[in-house]
Amino acid sequence: MACYVTHLESAIDGTHLAAGELQTMHKDRPLWVRYDLEAVASTFKKEMLLGREPTLWRYRELLPIADDQQIISLGEGMSPLLACTRLGKQLGLSDLWIKDESQLPTGSFKSRGMALAITMAHGFGVKRVALPSAGNAGGAAAAYGARAGIEAYVFMPADTPMINQYECVMGGAKTFVANGLINDCGRIVREGKERMGWFDLSTLKEPYRIEGKKTMGLELAEQFDWQLPDVILYPTGGGTGLIGMWKAFNELRAIGWLASDKRPRMVAVQSEGCCPIVTAFEKGDRFAELHQNAATIASGIRVPAAVGDFMILDAIRESGGCAIAVEESKIRNWMRTAMSQEGIAVCPEAAACVGAIEKLSASGWIKPNERTVIFNTGGAQKYVEAIRSDPRRIDLGQPVDWDWIEDV
Amino acid sequence: MACYVTHLESAIDGTHLAAGELQTMHKDRPLWVRYDLEAVASTFKKEMLLGREPTLWRYRELLPIADDQQIISLGEGMSPLLACTRLGKQLGLSDLWIKDESQLPTGSFKSRGMALAITMAHGFGVKRVALPSAGNAGGAAAAYGARAGIEAYVFMPADTPMINQYECVMGGAKTFVANGLINDCGRIVREGKERMGWFDLSTLKEPYRIEGKKTMGLELAEQFDWQLPDVILYPTGGGTGLIGMWKAFNELRAIGWLASDKRPRMVAVQSEGCCPIVTAFEKGDRFAELHQNAATIASGIRVPAAVGDFMILDAIRESGGCAIAVEESKIRNWMRTAMSQEGIAVCPEAAACVGAIEKLSASGWIKPNERTVIFNTGGAQKYVEAIRSDPRRIDLGQPVDWDWIEDV
Repeated sequence: MACYVTHLESAIDGTHLAAGELQTMHKDRPLWVRYDLEAVASTFKKEMLLGREPTLWRYRELLPIADDQQIISLGEGMSPLLACTRLGKQLGLSDLWIKDESQLPTGSFKSRGMALAITMAHGFGVKRVALPSAGNAGGAAAAYGARAGIEAYVFMPADTPMINQYECVMGGAKTFVANGLINDCGRIVREGKERMGWFDLSTLKEPYRIEGKKTMGLELAEQFDWQLPDVILYPTGGGTGLIGMWKAFNELRAIGWLASDKRPRMVAVQSEGCCPIVTAFEKGDRFAELHQNAATIASGIRVPAAVGDFMILDAIRESGGCAIAVEESKIRNWMRTAMSQEGIAVCPEAAACVGAIEKLSASGWIKPNERTVIFNTGGAQKYVEAIRSDPRRIDLGQPVDWDWIEDV
Repeated sequence: MACYVTHLESAIDGTHLAAGELQTMHKDRPLWVRYDLEAVASTFKKEMLLGREPTLWRYRELLPIADDQQIISLGEGMSPLLACTRLGKQLGLSDLWIKDESQLPTGSFKSRGMALAITMAHGFGVKRVALPSAGNAGGAAAAYGARAGIEAYVFMPADTPMINQYECVMGGAKTFVANGLINDCGRIVREGKERMGWFDLSTLKEPYRIEGKKTMGLELAEQFDWQLPDVILYPTGGGTGLIGMWKAFNELRAIGWLASDKRPRMVAVQSEGCCPIVTAFEKGDRFAELHQNAATIASGIRVPAAVGDFMILDAIRESGGCAIAVEESKIRNWMRTAMSQEGIAVCPEAAACVGAIEKLSASGWIKPNERTVIFNTGGAQKYVEAIRSDPRRIDLGQPVDWDWIEDV
């Protein structure tokens, strides 16, 4: 099978790099994977999707693989896109959807990026990878590393949710917690790279995680029959998904698959406890400053400095979108609202998007009939610390108090 | 769209009951849903699956629904079927697969049964449901109840894994823990049924959860191109999945979809800490006795008495299969083995199946080249108590000890 990748391209200055070898960054900034989209357009037809498996590999002509045998997979992709009538009504929207990424390997959207990153690293002969992670990325790296037979080293801040720590250890990753922040963990990876023979899997420090995350946009387009929604709310930490989806929409437009020219307004959602992108957006800056004392229960968006900040901000602005911070103290309430109204196991990060809609719908920025999509980037069940909430207790030594049960 | 259900049939004595009304059990034993399989055979063709969504509803002609509008869904079904070469090699098998049910709503296979049970109950006008649960069923009932707008009451033993408790509360279910066992919880549901206006969603106490679980067998057949495997290992608590799959295989045979007459040998896997079905199988009995002092970290198979015991045992024997108990103390090791070798988040219940293969492969009961499938009924991440395993600690106040990191 053909591979349509032509080259890699520096996101900061457009320099071309060869795609046939292992690449990392250019001038400490991320790389784009570029394709011969004319060739893709002439050979890749929508009808070809019909018989393909419901995984992200169904879009292989827009992915950097040459050979299906090379794929390291746990069955990732084609997460359900669920209409949320009841929650929408409460938020003043008649056309609200949640794309439920909790139904992916390791229970999070991180599997998309890791499937591509590990597939490519494995193909280039990498034997050892390392990354810092404050949440779901570690577990995904452990899982895909195990699947590929690659050694994975994961470095986590001490306040990483416990399940993310345990899933790394159980997955066979060499797992370490440090009494510091995610950037301290990133420094260990940087410092140890040469000595340990690690390939650095950090967010956007290799070119392929973004290609995996891009498939969220491809799937969304297919699931909506190639008519993109009006607004996408995306909980933004490193921002790979937002950047990737925007890239996907542009590629789909280039190959002529979109039903209309309309592209969604992209909304980056952060918590007031860590909102460097929001601050930069409001100041009109292209680069974000480090957010001091970052703190939020939404561990996936506890990213005080994003190496792809300018890529996120460019995409938001080009789309006519915005960046918005929500109240940290309300995140748990929004989780409960979404879970109890729609049955979807909404993680704290996606709950922040529910909060963002409250604001944007009230202010008229999102109109009542606009088609609006939230990405639920992981399963609520992985956040024990955030969902802790004790049931009522029944003492079997006493007769059952039915009136009390009725009144609960 | 047509519905092909003809009637319900008592599993204990064959009595026919009407399908058009809300039914529970007959003589305190479960009911089968029966279809006009000739009519299904004449209208339902494999090619019709091609354009259908990757959910369990793709098999709607073999499901008890008349109208797609009636469906209560969170996108359940078509879980990945993953080849496990490395784990297979270690276990002496060349053709081992895991069907990964952790990639379903609420992170477990319970979503299949609940999707059908809640869809049907909702269709019949039920407003309130109740069930006892010692694990993932509670969370699934909460989620589908929320999705349907039905009030759910969940009663759990105090030693239910914490995440299962929290997901029920966050999902808006009225959630109670009792200082007793699952049968005590079941008793509360029975006693309160009339007074509280509850419909009883307990395992096999209504006819439709089995139809949902049946789809594991339908999917497996489709994913293997209608050629069934040689052996299926299924962690067996209430046994709905094993019973349902066997029903699925018989229905597929009746409509002529199977590539050959071969059906798998069904293996019910339990822990030595709770193995009533194994005991009955070994004694040659059709009904199982209550397992005293049931205890296992595999909460999903901590079921000391199964109301469908005879249905499980009938299916195992008809298939030429067996029932086997594994060492409780090794379950965690098998989890770690499977996770670190294949990257699949194998729950304690599925880990028990890894242990069962160790035995059955060593004894020659499973031959090296037989196609063998394990069902991973839920995500390891939901079992905090079982996966607890602390990473190594790095003190950032000290220089990094690279030799120590290398030696880990």
